[in-house]
Amino acid sequence: MKLSCLQENLNKAISIVSKVVATRSTLPVLSNILIKTEKGRLKLSATNLEIGISCWIGSKIEKEGSITIPARLFSDFVATNTDKTIAFELENTSLSLKSEHFFAHIKGIEASEFPLIPQIHQEPFIELPVLPLKEAITQTVFAVAIDETRPVLAGVLLRFVDDKLKIAATDSYRLAERQIELPRKVEKNVDLIVPAKTILELARIMSDSEQAVTIRVAENQVQFDISQAQVVSRLIEGSFPQYEQIIPSQTPISATVPTADFQNAIKMASLFARESADNIKLKIKKDNNLEIVAISPQAGDSVSNLSAQTTGEIEIAFNAKYLSDVLPVLGAEKLELLFSGPLSPGLVRPKNSKDYLYIIMPLKTEE
Amino acid sequence: MKLSCLQENLNKAISIVSKVVATRSTLPVLSNILIKTEKGRLKLSATNLEIGISCWIGSKIEKEGSITIPARLFSDFVATNTDKTIAFELENTSLSLKSEHFFAHIKGIEASEFPLIPQIHQEPFIELPVLPLKEAITQTVFAVAIDETRPVLAGVLLRFVDDKLKIAATDSYRLAERQIELPRKVEKNVDLIVPAKTILELARIMSDSEQAVTIRVAENQVQFDISQAQVVSRLIEGSFPQYEQIIPSQTPISATVPTADFQNAIKMASLFARESADNIKLKIKKDNNLEIVAISPQAGDSVSNLSAQTTGEIEIAFNAKYLSDVLPVLGAEKLELLFSGPLSPGLVRPKNSKDYLYIIMPLKTEE
Repeated sequence: MKLSCLQENLNKAISIVSKVVATRSTLPVLSNILIKTEKGRLKLSATNLEIGISCWIGSKIEKEGSITIPARLFSDFVATNTDKTIAFELENTSLSLKSEHFFAHIKGIEASEFPLIPQIHQEPFIELPVLPLKEAITQTVFAVAIDETRPVLAGVLLRFVDDKLKIAATDSYRLAERQIELPRKVEKNVDLIVPAKTILELARIMSDSEQAVTIRVAENQVQFDISQAQVVSRLIEGSFPQYEQIIPSQTPISATVPTADFQNAIKMASLFARESADNIKLKIKKDNNLEIVAISPQAGDSVSNLSAQTTGEIEIAFNAKYLSDVLPVLGAEKLELLFSGPLSPGLVRPKNSKDYLYIIMPLKTEE
Repeated sequence: MKLSCLQENLNKAISIVSKVVATRSTLPVLSNILIKTEKGRLKLSATNLEIGISCWIGSKIEKEGSITIPARLFSDFVATNTDKTIAFELENTSLSLKSEHFFAHIKGIEASEFPLIPQIHQEPFIELPVLPLKEAITQTVFAVAIDETRPVLAGVLLRFVDDKLKIAATDSYRLAERQIELPRKVEKNVDLIVPAKTILELARIMSDSEQAVTIRVAENQVQFDISQAQVVSRLIEGSFPQYEQIIPSQTPISATVPTADFQNAIKMASLFARESADNIKLKIKKDNNLEIVAISPQAGDSVSNLSAQTTGEIEIAFNAKYLSDVLPVLGAEKLELLFSGPLSPGLVRPKNSKDYLYIIMPLKTEE
């Protein structure tokens, strides 16, 4: 192996693949990045056996070859290197890296020991526009279950139905759903449940300058291709909960408030709810007033008052964290809170938007 | 107690005093901030029994009084509060805080339980200009000893000699010294050894808009007054090492290099020195070349090449961390490395500056 490439491209490629490098694995080669010449380009790959990420960059190849080298040292070496071009040369399993001011040897492990990252060569299932997909991931992935007792809840649902994509996540206490119009009708309606870590890596890799991501599906596996990078991941098996039935259809009680004011009032209430399991109370009042109350047995209590457009009256208790989680991703200056009763799920959505909704289960109050 | 003050002033005062609040103390009142009306102003104080910080702000006082309330909740409440004015009213030990949109009660502990922070009422020892003092602290405090087996090394020396102040710190492997010209000769030459934490708090509190800090000294104690704030601390007893004798007087071997290039090369070498106790080697060569070499038994090795103005030749080994620590605080585009031999202390200083020096002990090499 003998080649050279631009430090800038190499640095970018390493940052794309290195997030899935296993930091503590019983298999040392998983802490490495595979570098390999492939059809006139340099390919970098990393995997944690659940997700594999590859990235290709242009390079001047004098001699083909492949090796795996420790991700952290390689990444730090390239990031610290201030020279324009870096030349690679492999001698046995030692990779020499040479540039104008820096010369290093990094000891590697043979490429043959690196696990195969399966590629899907089937026809693309669909091509999706990057920007709405990225936004949809941010708006849903935070709602996945942290504990993995129900594996399907640790994933984000991509539900393709005709010319619509519904992206949803739930931990059974709250649910986030975003809809995206597809450029065309899908040939077959399918549900893909993608692990949260995979969808987060995908969102991280999709830079705003990208146009589209191509999705390929095989049994238990999904592949995302974005210009120079590729993410391959297992899919989560099982059926996603039929969540549509809990979306409240009648919500006669409502409040519309500026998102920033509401966010601040929830933050204030959270301070006083620390000792009472984040339990806070919303009070919608007839006189266009929304009150947020928190009571701490030890520390004290707080009441925040917001002016709001209100319909009806209600007192309803929620976990403050579940409310505050959704506020930064609403992407709207005003939000709507919609309720049917103090024991029924509440609905939060951006004002004047029908493609996003967030449902949250109320807490039972002692009264 | 009944008063009101501006949220902005209150927020700033809390941030000044709250850093010394004990987070885990057997004495609960040490987690609190003391608030007290005093001569028409509101005084906030906190202490960890080693350092005490007080801060005064203007306020409209209707009724005198004092109370201590939990620092974290008070600080978060004020920081989250978006209203202009906050009104305080004390009922027994519960403090009510009221503003346009927020109303809260915070439960406190009586002021009588708060430890007394001793104030020094003697004549000022000296007044120092803020900017050079702040810079001098940054340039020295990082060199204090972390382990406290020799208590004097856990402090920063302020040595007043005639019309000079020498500020120095050492952990016995390296030493940093900055000199400041005093506006006038001191009446008495003294050494003050100030705990590193105190001097860091002082540097944090001195904003760039301040002019001067007034120092008062009593037995075992020092007090710094800066406009609205006051820091009181114990002094460290004992004699600071007579470090002047290790400052090399003859340094025939030298290299002058751009600070940023050298910093980057040290960073690069550190990557490869992780497994060899940060041991790196500097090689000054006759042909205006400076080489920095690191060898890792497991990972590989690296050589960085810098063009430098050099005099003489040397190969000398150092702990990379001790070298990299000083580079961000030099405040100069070029630095000088000065040596007398591979087993003698090395000297690092900003080019064209005589008021700062950094001495570093070399490592013995195996050869």
